[in-house]
Formats: sequence, C-alpha cells, structure tokens
Amino acid sequence: MRHLLRMEEVTTDEIFYLMEKAKRMEDVFEPFQKPKIIANLFYEPSTRTKLSFEVAEKRLGYHVLDFDAAHSSVRKGESLYDTVKTIESLGADAVVIRHRQNAYYNELLQGVDLPIINGGDGTGEHPTQCLLDLFTIYEEFRTFKGINVVIAGDVLHSRVARSNAHTLSRLGAQVQIACPNVWDDPTLPYERVAIDDSVERCDVLMLLRVQHERHEYTTQSSDYLETYGLTIERERRMRERSIILHPAPVNRGIEIHDSLVECERSRIFKQMSNGVLVRMAVLDTLLSKGERNDDVTNQRRSLV
Amino acid sequence: MRHLLRMEEVTTDEIFYLMEKAKRMEDVFEPFQKPKIIANLFYEPSTRTKLSFEVAEKRLGYHVLDFDAAHSSVRKGESLYDTVKTIESLGADAVVIRHRQNAYYNELLQGVDLPIINGGDGTGEHPTQCLLDLFTIYEEFRTFKGINVVIAGDVLHSRVARSNAHTLSRLGAQVQIACPNVWDDPTLPYERVAIDDSVERCDVLMLLRVQHERHEYTTQSSDYLETYGLTIERERRMRERSIILHPAPVNRGIEIHDSLVECERSRIFKQMSNGVLVRMAVLDTLLSKGERNDDVTNQRRSLV
Amino acid sequence: MRHLLRMEEVTTDEIFYLMEKAKRMEDVFEPFQKPKIIANLFYEPSTRTKLSFEVAEKRLGYHVLDFDAAHSSVRKGESLYDTVKTIESLGADAVVIRHRQNAYYNELLQGVDLPIINGGDGTGEHPTQCLLDLFTIYEEFRTFKGINVVIAGDVLHSRVARSNAHTLSRLGAQVQIACPNVWDDPTLPYERVAIDDSVERCDVLMLLRVQHERHEYTTQSSDYLETYGLTIERERRMRERSIILHPAPVNRGIEIHDSLVECERSRIFKQMSNGVLVRMAVLDTLLSKGERNDDVTNQRRSLV
Repeated sequence: MRHLLRMEEVTTDEIFYLMEKAKRMEDVFEPFQKPKIIANLFYEPSTRTKLSFEVAEKRLGYHVLDFDAAHSSVRKGESLYDTVKTIESLGADAVVIRHRQNAYYNELLQGVDLPIINGGDGTGEHPTQCLLDLFTIYEEFRTFKGINVVIAGDVLHSRVARSNAHTLSRLGAQVQIACPNVWDDPTLPYERVAIDDSVERCDVLMLLRVQHERHEYTTQSSDYLETYGLTIERERRMRERSIILHPAPVNRGIEIHDSLVECERSRIFKQMSNGVLVRMAVLDTLLSKGERNDDVTNQRRSLV
Repeated sequence: MRHLLRMEEVTTDEIFYLMEKAKRMEDVFEPFQKPKIIANLFYEPSTRTKLSFEVAEKRLGYHVLDFDAAHSSVRKGESLYDTVKTIESLGADAVVIRHRQNAYYNELLQGVDLPIINGGDGTGEHPTQCLLDLFTIYEEFRTFKGINVVIAGDVLHSRVARSNAHTLSRLGAQVQIACPNVWDDPTLPYERVAIDDSVERCDVLMLLRVQHERHEYTTQSSDYLETYGLTIERERRMRERSIILHPAPVNRGIEIHDSLVECERSRIFKQMSNGVLVRMAVLDTLLSKGERNDDVTNQRRSLV
Repeated sequence: MRHLLRMEEVTTDEIFYLMEKAKRMEDVFEPFQKPKIIANLFYEPSTRTKLSFEVAEKRLGYHVLDFDAAHSSVRKGESLYDTVKTIESLGADAVVIRHRQNAYYNELLQGVDLPIINGGDGTGEHPTQCLLDLFTIYEEFRTFKGINVVIAGDVLHSRVARSNAHTLSRLGAQVQIACPNVWDDPTLPYERVAIDDSVERCDVLMLLRVQHERHEYTTQSSDYLETYGLTIERERRMRERSIILHPAPVNRGIEIHDSLVECERSRIFKQMSNGVLVRMAVLDTLLSKGERNDDVTNQRRSLV
C-alpha cells in the first residue's frame, strides 16, 4: 500500500491484513524513536473522524499537525497542491485529507511524494469508515462469507454506502438495500428490500444518517422512523446475534429509536473504538515504507 | 473522588489532600508509560482555563484532545451526551467540560463512564478556579481558620463567588461580601461590608471581574473604581501580609487601579501558576483509579 | 541572544552561529528530559509560519501551546501584555508572536521575562523568514560576499524585503531591487534594476508575493508577469547555479510562471524545509539560557 484513497484499490489480502493488524493495535502505545509527523488537513468539519485520527496518531507516538483550513493560507487562494507540497516540505511523513471535492487526490498524485490517507472526498469515499465497518463485522462473525448485510436509509448522499456495498460484496457478504426511492442510487446492483421484511433475516443492519445539512427538503422525522428507520418493534424481530451499525452522528428518533442507540445489539459506539484501531493499522502500514503486498499476504497467512 | 463537579461534594479531607498534592506537582514532568488521553471540551471560549488545563495535562504526560465546539458535529445537532460518549469510545481517560448550561453534567452521569472535570457550568461553578484560589490562600497562610476574606464586586454574575464563599466558610475562614446592591446575591448568608472599610481588616481581598459581556448596562469605569474597586489609596491602607486575588482577565482601571495589578501584594499572576498545579493535582487524583477517600485522609494526615 | 525581534539586533556572528546550528538541526529529534513549553500566539492567520514553528518545536521535544487569538480572552478586551504575562505564569518557556501592530514587542519588554520570537509584526519584520532566506543562500554558496541578490516585486508591502536587503548587504552581498514604481520603498539605498536586465547577472532572484489582500487596486496578472515577474523566457536567460527564492504562498502565473515553481533552480519548497531548521536553531539558542555572544563567536570560529 502506498496511499489509502479508494476501497476498490485495496486488495482482499490487504483488507484482511489490516483487519488482523487493527486487532493487534489494542496494546500499541509506544512512541517511535524518531517521531513521525502527520498532518490532518480537514477542509470540511468532522469532529469524529478528526479526533479518531488524532487519537490513532498520538497512540502511535506521532506528532500531529492540525491544519485548520478555516484559518489558513487557503484564504489567500493557495491551491490544495501547494498546501500539501508545503506540508511535505515542512517534514510531514503522511497527510490525512478531507475535502469536499470528489477525488481531490488526483491532482496530488503526480507531484506529492507523501502517503495520502483519504479522510473523505465529497460524495466519493470515506475508506477508513468502510474499514472500521468491516472490522466491526469481522470482529463479530470472523468472516464475511454469507453474512447478510442490509444497508438502510439515505444511500444516495452517503459517503460510505457505495464502498461498503461493493467491498462487502467482494468479500462474500450478501448485500441488500432498504431505502426511500428518492434516496436510491440506481447504479448499485444489489437487491432492494423493505426494512420491515429484512430485520428478521439480516445479520448486520447498517443504518445510514439522514443528512439534513445536504438536503433541501426536510423529512418528517416520525414518518421516516416508522417507514424506513429502526423502531422498537423492528428491533425485537431481529434475530439473535445480529448487530446494528451506524456511522454517527445519529439522528436519534429518525434513523433509529432513541432507546436503541445503546441497546445490546448496537455496535454504534463500538464502531468508534474500532475506528481508532483501524486507523492505527492504516497509518502504521502506510508509514512502514519497506512493506510490500507479498509481506502482507504472508503475514496474513501466518496470522489467520 | 470520581468526578470533579461541585465544590459541595468535595470533602474537607479531599480539599487538603489536593492542596498538598498540588504542592508536590511542582516537580512532576514525567510522562506515564502508557499515556493517558484527555479531551478538553470547551463549548464557551476560555483561553486561560483551557491553556491552564492543557499545560497541566502535558506536564503530566497526557495526550490532549482539543475539541473545538465551534467546528464540531455539534453543528449537526449532536447532543452533549452523544459527544461525550463518542469521546469515551475514542479511548479518552477523562474529559474536561465547559458548557453554558448549568449542571450540564447531570445528563452525563448515567451513561458516561469517564471522570468529568467541570471547567465551568453556566452561572453554576468553576471548581478548579475555586481550588486554585484556595491553594493560593493556603500557600500564603498555611491555614484557612480565622482568615478574613472579602469578596468584592460582581457577586451575582460570578461563577466563583458562591462556591468560594461557601467553601472558605466551611474551611473556617471568615467571609464578607462587598458589592454593589444590583449585583448582590441575597442567598449568600455572609456579612455585607463596604470595601472602603474592609481593606484595613481583611487578609485576602478577592476582587471579581465586572462581566461586561454578561451585562446589558455598562458601568462608568471611573465611578466603579472609586466606589467599589481597589484604588491606590485603599491599597495603601491594606495591612501587612494581606493579599489581593482576582480570577482574571482583569479590567484594568475598573476593578483595580492599573498600577496595582502587579503590586507586591497582588497574587493575580501567581494564581495562574497555581492553577496549573491544582489542575495537575485534580487530574492525577481522578485518573489514579484505585485511590479511595480513606487513602486521601491517611495521606493528608501523614503529610500535614 | 535574549529575544529574536529585529534583524538589526542580530550580530553577524550570531547570524553565522545560527546558520551553522540550523545545519546541525537536521538530526535533532530527541526530546528534553523536562520538556520545554512554547506558546504560539498568532493574532494574524499564517498557516505556513505557524506550522513551521510547530514542527520545529515538536522536533525539539517541546510542548506546544496553540493560542488561537480568534477564540480567546482577547475578545474580552485583554491586552497583549496581560495575555503574554498569563502565558508566562502558566509556565511557558518562550513565546512566538505574530501581531498586526508594528513593534508590538516594545510594550512587552519591560514586564515580561520570557524570550520573545517575532513571527511577524505588521509591516515591520519577519526575522525567521529572513534567517531562512539567508540559510538557503548560505547552503548554496557557503558565503554571502559578492553574491548578487535581486529582490523583485512588491517591496513596499513586503515584511521581508527590507530586513533581507539590509542584512544581506551587511553580510557582503550586492543587493539590487527590481520593482514597480508604485511599490517601491524610497528609503532603501540600493540600486534599482529591471528584472529583464538582471536575470542574466544575479545569483539569487528573490521574488516577492503580490499581496492582493493588502492592496486596494488589483493588478492585471498577465501584465504583471510579463513586466515584473519571472517568465519562462527570463528563467532561460538566468545563469548556471543561480537560484530562485519566494517566501510563499506563491501566486502562480503572477510573480512567476506556473511551470517554474518547481523548476530545477527553484528553492521555493526547499525554503520551507530550511525554515524548520532555522526555527529549531533559533528556539534552541534562545532557550539555552547560559549561552553568551562570546560562545556564539567561539563556536562559529571552531565550526567555520
């Protein structure tokens, strides 16, 4: 691995390597001898993701450069390319970027010599969120083969629905989609289901956030919950050992009934803990220069 | 101690334990083996308190998560509870919170498993400010018994006047209040005095900040200084060894004459240095899990 | 050295000492035993300078206090003096300040006991930028004597043109100025040249940024490039081993043709790397208390 940009480019071997590595990150707290320097460039606000990267970086002993795009030279009209070149020149060893432009990284790959970790690009991808969802499922079932995953809600505006669907399908899971017609993405080649029917069958119910701030029209929250969300009644019909995921922040009472956010089968806060481990695994992998895919494969074999 | 929320809940033994511990913090600079992670959640701006906590945390070797509420998911309508749960899930070992809502912590105590350090709640309390005032007095007189403390100024809007008055009184100090009638708090059962009379008697003159930003009406500054503030003439009449406190930032020329801010009996900047030590003592106490009140008592006895 | 405020006060010996010290900073990554605490007070936004100081400080093992003037007690009307006194009281060992007021440091020198590093004062100076320009030239030519430096562009509004010109001249370089008449500074006693004539003669072409945000009138960018900037044709006429400097951020296509920013003779990104080393050298020098100018001189002699 050289960067982390799109899930499509992460091989299945690399995914399993990262799953195993994330597991081993639980006890990692030792700083490097010569500390690595990581810059977090968030051009869009994102408390959760930014803090999660920060914890991961600090637990790995990295020095963190916190780049606040709101107070930066960007206001002087500096391009993303020049900003990242600056950060490279200042001595950073890698850069985490969230940017509202889809595939912003394309303009960087020529001139920039740093590993780039995609922290979210427009409506494109959010690969570490995908990896933490995978890790949470993997921790639960120790396999993806045959696992039934229902992705429910605002599929169209979600930054994780598409890459989650494709990657889970690639890994052998059975993916289904339960969403309002207006928020469907017709390019996704997966079976459509009604949440009401699917709760009894699925192993993983992956709820998506209603992105109020991205919609012009507002949803009547109680209607949404009844028709498309996880009500108390539906949760009761879910089968034993099935789990609930949500990328957070949760709209309590819209995607999910308030009282279910911390119910027994909810892994919503567990996902956040897992996010730190997965990001540690990604960072440590990208910053250990000599590592090749062969090693990844070998290491996975010896681990699994 | 489990949290630090209100002074009323801090026992006298615990207060003395913290006083002694703060003293010993002066030489503490070693990081922990496995670094603790602390999140600072400031929903209201507060340079001084925030930086003071930050220095304390860094001197203890903690990793600091700096949560900027202005650029956070709060804008997506996330509740304080969900934010703190997120921070807990990310692996924080404790959280410092300043919030404009009085007793904001009540909604957290059920579901949150982290120690909470109250960095100021609305017009409620600011317990580490209280502790640093106590520490500054204790460092000076080595006792609270019989010490005459005059609290002067905007008592009504102050976040420290009430808890300082109650706690000092509990510890044996003689508390008096010198304030404009419009800014009096009738629930405080302490003797009212005029500053002009009290300067010759008091051991501690605790000036409060005129909170321009909280008042609709503005005070004529020169009038205020003459009637309620510390003029050069009044300072001259103060007795030997008596000291001046102020929580800062100071309105120079309003609560106190400009030239007195750094006069010999002023402990205003000393209070800031002491604030770091007291916060180190609080953090180290709350984060050393096994410690019980018995130990606190024993330790105090062996120390005093 | 006690502070770093204006280049005029930095002796030639001290400059060479810092040049040599910057060179040796490349391998410095060890933290101090008792970590130093540095506060960065930026009252004006400056990504580049702030991040550069931050990297330098972290590589030296310092704890960094990041003071965001936009969210601070400054809004409560606190003076710069009181803020810096607060930072000193909190235990900082030095302070880096950028402020829009020229010579802001004059009001601090009486009461403040901390080393002050000037990160830019209004239209005054930006001494670490000057030092990094010097270092970049020195690294290239190992001397300043007889080096022809052409400073080209918006001399009048530049924070570095004046101190660079004076300091380079003092060190033996031959300084010339190529600028539009409206942006000339008549107090600078150096020869005026046209960029078109000078490119063939100069060893160092020091381009300045067109400060759009400081001008009322706007320049037609293509006109500016043709008349005053570095075109492809002009770069071709530059002599072997001559180099291009620019303080950045670059207005691509205005001061310099887009394709030349990373050309072989450009040291623009190298300047940023050098900035970290120079700032490490300054910080380490100012924070090693016992050091005197004599030592500086001796050390330089033994080094050169």
